[in-house]
Amino acid sequence: MTTRNACLALDAEDSLAPLRQQFALPQGVIYLDGNSLGARPVAALARAQQVIEQEWGNGLIRSWNSAGWRALSERLGDRLAGLIGAGAGEVVVTDTTSINLFKVLSAALQVQNLRAPGRRVIVTESSNFPTDLYIAEGLAEMLQQGYSLRLVDSPEELPQAIDQDTAVVMLTHVNYKTGHMHDMQATTALIHECGALAIWDLAHSAGAVPVDLKQAGADYAIGCTYKYLNGGPGSQAFAWVAPALVDLVKQPLSGWFGHARQFDMESRYEPSSGIARYLCGTQPITSLAMVECGLDIFAQTDMASLRRKSLALTDLFIELVEQRCGAHGLTLITPREHARRGSHVSFEHPQGYAVIQALIARGVIGDYREPRIMRFGFTPLYTSFTEVWDAVQILGEILDQKTWDQAQFQVRNSVT
Amino acid sequence: MTTRNACLALDAEDSLAPLRQQFALPQGVIYLDGNSLGARPVAALARAQQVIEQEWGNGLIRSWNSAGWRALSERLGDRLAGLIGAGAGEVVVTDTTSINLFKVLSAALQVQNLRAPGRRVIVTESSNFPTDLYIAEGLAEMLQQGYSLRLVDSPEELPQAIDQDTAVVMLTHVNYKTGHMHDMQATTALIHECGALAIWDLAHSAGAVPVDLKQAGADYAIGCTYKYLNGGPGSQAFAWVAPALVDLVKQPLSGWFGHARQFDMESRYEPSSGIARYLCGTQPITSLAMVECGLDIFAQTDMASLRRKSLALTDLFIELVEQRCGAHGLTLITPREHARRGSHVSFEHPQGYAVIQALIARGVIGDYREPRIMRFGFTPLYTSFTEVWDAVQILGEILDQKTWDQAQFQVRNSVT
Repeated sequence: MTTRNACLALDAEDSLAPLRQQFALPQGVIYLDGNSLGARPVAALARAQQVIEQEWGNGLIRSWNSAGWRALSERLGDRLAGLIGAGAGEVVVTDTTSINLFKVLSAALQVQNLRAPGRRVIVTESSNFPTDLYIAEGLAEMLQQGYSLRLVDSPEELPQAIDQDTAVVMLTHVNYKTGHMHDMQATTALIHECGALAIWDLAHSAGAVPVDLKQAGADYAIGCTYKYLNGGPGSQAFAWVAPALVDLVKQPLSGWFGHARQFDMESRYEPSSGIARYLCGTQPITSLAMVECGLDIFAQTDMASLRRKSLALTDLFIELVEQRCGAHGLTLITPREHARRGSHVSFEHPQGYAVIQALIARGVIGDYREPRIMRFGFTPLYTSFTEVWDAVQILGEILDQKTWDQAQFQVRNSVT
Repeated sequence: MTTRNACLALDAEDSLAPLRQQFALPQGVIYLDGNSLGARPVAALARAQQVIEQEWGNGLIRSWNSAGWRALSERLGDRLAGLIGAGAGEVVVTDTTSINLFKVLSAALQVQNLRAPGRRVIVTESSNFPTDLYIAEGLAEMLQQGYSLRLVDSPEELPQAIDQDTAVVMLTHVNYKTGHMHDMQATTALIHECGALAIWDLAHSAGAVPVDLKQAGADYAIGCTYKYLNGGPGSQAFAWVAPALVDLVKQPLSGWFGHARQFDMESRYEPSSGIARYLCGTQPITSLAMVECGLDIFAQTDMASLRRKSLALTDLFIELVEQRCGAHGLTLITPREHARRGSHVSFEHPQGYAVIQALIARGVIGDYREPRIMRFGFTPLYTSFTEVWDAVQILGEILDQKTWDQAQFQVRNSVT
């Protein structure tokens, strides 16, 4: 079994280790939930203070111009683009992942109505993140044009599920439960062979694994900035559309920020060209501005380095859990194969919820997902090898001592 | 003409005057644009610091429960409800006004399909705020069910425009250009007599004028927290639905926050009962939290007192402008009648844009709206009578001296 000293040695030679200083993490906590809410960049506080005191308080309405608020969604999109293989002018940071999925899925269905009318099936996975399923369901019902969802229960079933009726295939690149990662390029090629369009949800990918949307030939992508990108609680989501598709149709949430001439205040909508047509209403600026602090840290490294460390961390965690806790009925549900693994690791355990609560009480923060899934995120920007070792030790003690059996750990919170 | 000393006397006896101390306004500025972006409550900075340092930085993912993030949209809705004549559990603060309009308009059309099928016209005003028109246009196009917009050019034309084809009448209570205020109760009654549903946009009403949605019999309302409610730049919007209607249909932006059992992570959507079904995705929390700081100030007074002062301020402004600047071709487009006036006053002037820029350069911040409209907002929480007097003096000097004719004031900013 890898020793704690060996982990200390790995940390000592880790070229990414100094980046941790740019995060404000509480004492006594091993944070393995950056896949759900990223840690706070130290700089975020000063940035928010600047927005609130200077830009809002002193600049007031003038800051829409002078502080660049009007262009902020697009400017942040440009900064984020490099992390996902998109180009400048192709990404906006705005609204929520749910809303952005509604926009791109609506657009994709319209494009298919032009190109391949009659296709009425949206293929996705039953294990896709629930809000993605709900949004597709809501859109299909709303349209009353015969659209339906076809859910597959495993990635292996995808090839058979995509056929001549398939308008769109909508997949989350890294599964929120299992950490399984699709081969984006191969899957997109498969989707295109069947004449369908590919929407990729990058919620658990952006900033976590290398993504190259253009290389993969993707059509649409959406994702989240509050997980691995460390944008802050609930920070705005992003949307990307392949340049060849973006101007073909309007998305239906046609608010004034997407208008070609917003402040001409015309009574008819005319979409901006390019990704700006995916903007809608006025964005909460303080939260949006802090997204940049997370991106500033990514600008100091590269996704290849982050991926190397991410895989080393998840490899180590799997190895140690299986060695230290092997007797306790944990089942790994995350792929061992590197090419199929994102940046979090999940184990099933019959008492998964209570074990996670007991871990949190000991300062090891992971999270729980129905059913029975204990989920641990590894963020190479701020997670050390020694933390992985310590977390597994504590997990082992909790399982050995059945600490999870205490009543306090069985009480369900409203957010799990 | 009312003297400056008389204004000083009015300020001295103004019972609302002490509330100004709770706002951080810059020195040397007379801020008459709270109708566009409200001033900063002093408390907002500390609240944001708390969210960023304690809740995000230290609490991390736990804050969804421990800091009440999950319930924040509903809790703020409850606090806002009293300002608009809504009840507890009937309002959510979430997303943007544009997005919320899409939700309620979609729902209203569905309700009409149940109650009065075949109605396919959405009546509104051509001078409604553009994003409202764009959203309705986008929804109508998307549905492909024969919906169309019928635009009236003045409030007087409304009665003839509402007929047996009218599904929904969608009005902004206080017009963003003219400051004209509809009689909500009488207009809603008219709408209902014709069998249509009434959607009220309260962007320029909430916190500006007394609103009683339930007394008026309204069906749906949306509005903005970053104007008179002082929630911060781009802070989240709100949505209200009459209790009798809210559970009849789903709104189509069916994200996970609107699910009856969000963290059960089911694959099918089942809406929450009540207004929670109007939630969609994860909200930018730092911005959302600051909304409460504005509401805290409203809790120290009441809308009747605010309305009295608002009318006194706008009366004074109109009187002084007409006396001091009467020779300069300004045309009042705001109703003189109190019952028809919101809390801002607009004058047309051929050089309106340049005059506003010259005013801003002198520290008097109003704003400009196409075409030719100079707009001045009066926020009784922090605007004094003496400021009104001083602002008019400066306006008079600019007009007397044609300061607006300088080249620097003719350059258009991207945001006006």
